[in-house]
Amino acid sequence: MMNLAPILSETLDAATKGYPPSRPALPISAIGAERWSLFAGDLPLPQAVIRDSALAHNHAWMRDFTASTGVLLAPHGKTTMAPQIFAQQLAAGAWGITVANVQQLGICVRFGVRRVIMANQLLGAAEVGAVIRLREAHPDLEFHFLIDSQAQLASIEHLAASQKISRKVTALVELGVPGGRTGCRAYNEALAVARAVAASKIVALSGLECYEGLQVSGDSGRDEVVVAALMQRVQDVALACDREGLFADPTIILTAGGSAAFDIVARDLPMRLSKPVLTILRSGCYVTHDSGFYNRMLEGVKARSGAAWQARPGLQAALEVWSQVQSCPEPGLAILTMGKRDASFDLEMPIVSKRYRPGTDAAPQPVPASWKIANMNDQHAYLRFSAGADATPQVGDLVGCGISHPCTTFDKWRALFTVDDDYRVTGAIRTFF
Amino acid sequence: MMNLAPILSETLDAATKGYPPSRPALPISAIGAERWSLFAGDLPLPQAVIRDSALAHNHAWMRDFTASTGVLLAPHGKTTMAPQIFAQQLAAGAWGITVANVQQLGICVRFGVRRVIMANQLLGAAEVGAVIRLREAHPDLEFHFLIDSQAQLASIEHLAASQKISRKVTALVELGVPGGRTGCRAYNEALAVARAVAASKIVALSGLECYEGLQVSGDSGRDEVVVAALMQRVQDVALACDREGLFADPTIILTAGGSAAFDIVARDLPMRLSKPVLTILRSGCYVTHDSGFYNRMLEGVKARSGAAWQARPGLQAALEVWSQVQSCPEPGLAILTMGKRDASFDLEMPIVSKRYRPGTDAAPQPVPASWKIANMNDQHAYLRFSAGADATPQVGDLVGCGISHPCTTFDKWRALFTVDDDYRVTGAIRTFF
Repeated sequence: MMNLAPILSETLDAATKGYPPSRPALPISAIGAERWSLFAGDLPLPQAVIRDSALAHNHAWMRDFTASTGVLLAPHGKTTMAPQIFAQQLAAGAWGITVANVQQLGICVRFGVRRVIMANQLLGAAEVGAVIRLREAHPDLEFHFLIDSQAQLASIEHLAASQKISRKVTALVELGVPGGRTGCRAYNEALAVARAVAASKIVALSGLECYEGLQVSGDSGRDEVVVAALMQRVQDVALACDREGLFADPTIILTAGGSAAFDIVARDLPMRLSKPVLTILRSGCYVTHDSGFYNRMLEGVKARSGAAWQARPGLQAALEVWSQVQSCPEPGLAILTMGKRDASFDLEMPIVSKRYRPGTDAAPQPVPASWKIANMNDQHAYLRFSAGADATPQVGDLVGCGISHPCTTFDKWRALFTVDDDYRVTGAIRTFF
Repeated sequence: MMNLAPILSETLDAATKGYPPSRPALPISAIGAERWSLFAGDLPLPQAVIRDSALAHNHAWMRDFTASTGVLLAPHGKTTMAPQIFAQQLAAGAWGITVANVQQLGICVRFGVRRVIMANQLLGAAEVGAVIRLREAHPDLEFHFLIDSQAQLASIEHLAASQKISRKVTALVELGVPGGRTGCRAYNEALAVARAVAASKIVALSGLECYEGLQVSGDSGRDEVVVAALMQRVQDVALACDREGLFADPTIILTAGGSAAFDIVARDLPMRLSKPVLTILRSGCYVTHDSGFYNRMLEGVKARSGAAWQARPGLQAALEVWSQVQSCPEPGLAILTMGKRDASFDLEMPIVSKRYRPGTDAAPQPVPASWKIANMNDQHAYLRFSAGADATPQVGDLVGCGISHPCTTFDKWRALFTVDDDYRVTGAIRTFF
């Protein structure tokens, strides 16, 4: 059970970007009762908001998807780094939480998560020491990290030699792809690392890992082949490790899966071994989804998943960044009060989706297709539009954007407000970056 | 006088990225006494550090530069959003602090800054209300914001109509350039806005503003022409406003200047009017400088500033992001434990500058010229190098990178450690994003 009380009792005030600048400080638990309205002018801009209804929909969608395929889910917590969202994910049936580093592991443990996969190599004196200390302090903590070289194993053994260890740390051997990121490139190399781990007095082998997401292109036919081939390689190594008795635990973990081709992982990674296999997806971005890259990738997921999933509404974009038109200095150009500090720009610019004119509109309106964010500076966005269009931005208009790649929007906000379908604030989600 | 006591007494712990994961929570004021060493393995990685000696050098350099040219400095606080650095800047003679939005203004006021320029348009109900409230609560607060349209002025007057205002808010009319960002494009347009402000019962005209930074290319001859032309346009409008008696205060503010061509601003913007003119630079990035864009631009500044400034050591890169080699999966490729969450990538990738092998090196070593960060994911960087070079990265090596564009590194860290020349932690700088 997670303990969110320290977060809910934490006080926010106007030192935090997005908090109403003239309102008194409030504990997070009390913010929803204020019923602040984005459209009534209660909030400063820019403002990153999470739509409750879309978030709830996505939790249910992924719960049903994983249930229908029989795989487990350890959603990647690095996306949101929000224990309040981790708690929702666990309540929706997630097996555990995935993290990217030891600071993120510490956040999980602090707020009560007890099954964590670190989808990254463990190394470094401070990090190895902290992992051992956390495991010793929390005997119920199940934690698996990645290992992809004997040099890394030797480093961990060296750093752990002086520490008291009442149980071995558990690691997943990572398989990678040529030209890719981390992970053993070759079968023999992976098997050699697995054998070395199995022989270690400090580390035990708990399974295998890979990440297919960097290979996914959106070309569904190509993605099928590439991802299926990687899953086959994991299975080949798993079979060899199992034959040699290298897996130490009563269950064997096989894990892969971002948010772009998790259906192929769920279909092709499960296998039978001599002990029960836990097949674990690590999708992170599904939880808020997006209006760009992952939204495009979802088309492939749905197309590959059969008629029932095509008929069902897909994941919904829950994360929006709202800003205000501050200047209309030239025909076809409006400058908005958001920038690289506020919204993702690493895969593409924010996607303009809604507008609202205070004092005129009763609800947000759709935007003409010509409206595009052409560029962003640190604190400004350039909205380009066809000057002859039926709707023209005016100074003071609110503009809502979807984003592409939620990870790089979440990390720009220390707290994000959740909103109902009328864009009234229902609460605040605290992030830990 | 700034009051940093609330920051210095604030407690940091391992929930904050970069804090040693096994150390107890400490107030910021107590962190320096721990003498944590980057190279002794006391700190987790990645780690963004500010080199004290370079920071102090840059404060002195800019103090001397502005003193030698007679202009004032209101450094852009959005770069660091660190009141502790604002205090250093004011102690080094800065006239005030520049901000980009009302949340940043609130941070300045909270910690005692009493002269603030918001180099951005003021608008929005929450924002206008907050500005009025802050000014009423702090009669000693001098605050100037930008205005570039009569629509913006009308919106402010509408929003302020219901508020008690014992003194007018003060605004700078912004001049822009065709194809640029905000700001009046034409002389007549700027003059019309200035007249409307001068006639307002809510807003008073305190000066003129422009931002030349987006036009600077690094081609020194071209930059001279472009920036000088923009300064001339500001002077033309200033002269007209002065003749018409539109400026309300006993002094007139003329302000421009980022960190790429501030020398041209300092040379060409000052002018005589009927009242004393305060010429104010707003450079922000100079304070930590960088190893990329601004370092290249500094060459132009020095070349244009005469023999004395060419002979003198220039600004120094104070901000570095250190990470660790976590995997060497292929010849010529090492994967580092830092990513888009940790270091600037908007102008270019981080610039590899130092390496340190724990247990072997006594001090950081230079890196071969072939070492380049080719790409970053959220939490990983791809270090490419010539496989035949004399030095080859190994798993566990520390790698130090300079960055390009400090603004987009500062906003990724809630606290950054300051370090001495041996990379021992001397304190922590808290940011407010």
